[in-house]
Amino acid sequence: MPGSAGSPPGAPSTIGGLGERAILDRIRARVPPAPPWVVAGIGDDAAVIEPSRNLLDVLTTDALVEGVHFDRRLCTAHEIGYRALAVNLSDLAAMGASPRAALLSLALPPALPVTDLDDLLEGFLDIARAHRLALVGGNIARSPGPLVIDVTATGSVHRRRLLRRCGAKPGDDLFVSGSIGAAAAGLAWLQARTTDATAVPADPALERCAERYRCPEPRVRLGVLVGRNRAASACVDLSDGLADAVHQLASASGVGAAIEADQVPIAEAARRWFEACGQDPTAAALGGGDDYELLFAVPRRAIRRFQAVARLVRDLPVTRIGVVTREPAVRLNRQIGDVPIGGGYSHFSS
Amino acid sequence: MPGSAGSPPGAPSTIGGLGERAILDRIRARVPPAPPWVVAGIGDDAAVIEPSRNLLDVLTTDALVEGVHFDRRLCTAHEIGYRALAVNLSDLAAMGASPRAALLSLALPPALPVTDLDDLLEGFLDIARAHRLALVGGNIARSPGPLVIDVTATGSVHRRRLLRRCGAKPGDDLFVSGSIGAAAAGLAWLQARTTDATAVPADPALERCAERYRCPEPRVRLGVLVGRNRAASACVDLSDGLADAVHQLASASGVGAAIEADQVPIAEAARRWFEACGQDPTAAALGGGDDYELLFAVPRRAIRRFQAVARLVRDLPVTRIGVVTREPAVRLNRQIGDVPIGGGYSHFSS
Repeated sequence: MPGSAGSPPGAPSTIGGLGERAILDRIRARVPPAPPWVVAGIGDDAAVIEPSRNLLDVLTTDALVEGVHFDRRLCTAHEIGYRALAVNLSDLAAMGASPRAALLSLALPPALPVTDLDDLLEGFLDIARAHRLALVGGNIARSPGPLVIDVTATGSVHRRRLLRRCGAKPGDDLFVSGSIGAAAAGLAWLQARTTDATAVPADPALERCAERYRCPEPRVRLGVLVGRNRAASACVDLSDGLADAVHQLASASGVGAAIEADQVPIAEAARRWFEACGQDPTAAALGGGDDYELLFAVPRRAIRRFQAVARLVRDLPVTRIGVVTREPAVRLNRQIGDVPIGGGYSHFSS
Repeated sequence: MPGSAGSPPGAPSTIGGLGERAILDRIRARVPPAPPWVVAGIGDDAAVIEPSRNLLDVLTTDALVEGVHFDRRLCTAHEIGYRALAVNLSDLAAMGASPRAALLSLALPPALPVTDLDDLLEGFLDIARAHRLALVGGNIARSPGPLVIDVTATGSVHRRRLLRRCGAKPGDDLFVSGSIGAAAAGLAWLQARTTDATAVPADPALERCAERYRCPEPRVRLGVLVGRNRAASACVDLSDGLADAVHQLASASGVGAAIEADQVPIAEAARRWFEACGQDPTAAALGGGDDYELLFAVPRRAIRRFQAVARLVRDLPVTRIGVVTREPAVRLNRQIGDVPIGGGYSHFSS
């Protein structure tokens, strides 16, 4: 594969041809100037930043592993870099925290094209820029196996504006942002198209679902606004699916939940895809991961405030999907009767 | 392989038999109670900590990749967990920062014995305890390839007590802590023993070198004391060898360095091993990685202070090995004449 535009002729075309130093220099050249609160950025033994005055530090880490969380045949390097930060921003959003800084730790297969490293970094920096987050450090290692992108993101939040998983009370309403099932349907459609493009026709609506899988939009603004207005008693993100998120929130809060199946906002194209595949759309959407929406528990007295705050985020509806119960079970109410909801996606189940 | 002592009969013996939740519960059960400044620890979407009042936040990340940074035939899981945090603590030490918290991100092969996960965590928690660092969060993923342990460590330091790579001035003396070459010799000896134990006899001194490779002792107390007493103009750790460290410090400071070959404190057993292998001991020790000592540049006026501070750390000598020069080259002065020093270990060179 040829070097990227602008590389001198004969420059190494794969990571294995570059030294660690050359890779670092390549990254450093692409990272924008650090904001003034970064005391030491990329290039020292560690990054040094000024804490936000009177705010708490929020820290999260999430990794994308090739062959588990992405397939290089289905995603571009730009999308992989974007998504690696997006999933971490979603964790910050679920705490009500404003993003500040990130560390990027890469385990790179020597055969990786240098242009893919460049594109991955561009994807990472694109979403970093959109959320005013500074890349302040990281690590480069060789991988004898898959490409691994491990991101640590930090944010800040006022103590009284922090969202937790553990504050839900019986009687609180449960709301979810956006729509669910799109990422799971989009991924399944992409996989089917890659296996046999003639049997699976192009479909703009499912293409948009695939886009939601490849480039999820973390709900940072919504999380921060809800936290700032103290409009929810608990929050969790939907990285492993809505069913899993409800279980997490209920278990951390020592409560249960009853979800109304016909209220769950399933993305229309996803519903169509699941039905075409002979799956129960509600079960498929509840169990599918990668949506990166937020689930909130909202006390009755805060519902108007919650809805007013949510309206400030354009093009992102919130939908009431059920209620927190005292009895510590998670149930799905359907017209055909109630059924317990299974847990979500497990990285070790397949 | 049987489950660990105390596991119920029939409990899964490999990671692949456990769900993500069971792995998390297993980890949570082993982590000691969090200190009061941890507002939200393991189990939420992100960790939340109070920043240290009036101090800067220091953040570092470093990964150990199986087959690159360790070989499970040469190291126990306990040692791997210990080392994964030790190498990060060494980065904090090089900044003069006191350790506070860490995130542990694991990519686990499904065939990994559950007992190895337990042991890895014990090793991590052993060195965390010794340095009063709290494990506050992390991530668990499946790996279709190598075991990857990615650690992010945070620390805190007063702005005026921060050590950087970039402050060295011409005329400053260069000091290194402890002795060098032991880790590289110990690793080579271990590898030779593993290949053919009859040809490579047991040797207590080389066994101790191997121990320094497997369980490096990060020089946290020395780094913090030197920073606190403003006794050095620059500092870097020796993760990739002394030659590399000198290059890093010189390059970041825009200076050069002259190292006196006969002053370099090469571990005696390492010198013996390198000579037996027909290698130049000085070159081998300078180029060998994994020592995790600290290299300091010390202004002339601060030398007494530096030496007094260093004496506070028992059993850890510091040795003057050369001087910072205005001419931006790094040279090794030997009795046979001066030679330029090559860079250190590169993770992509092999």
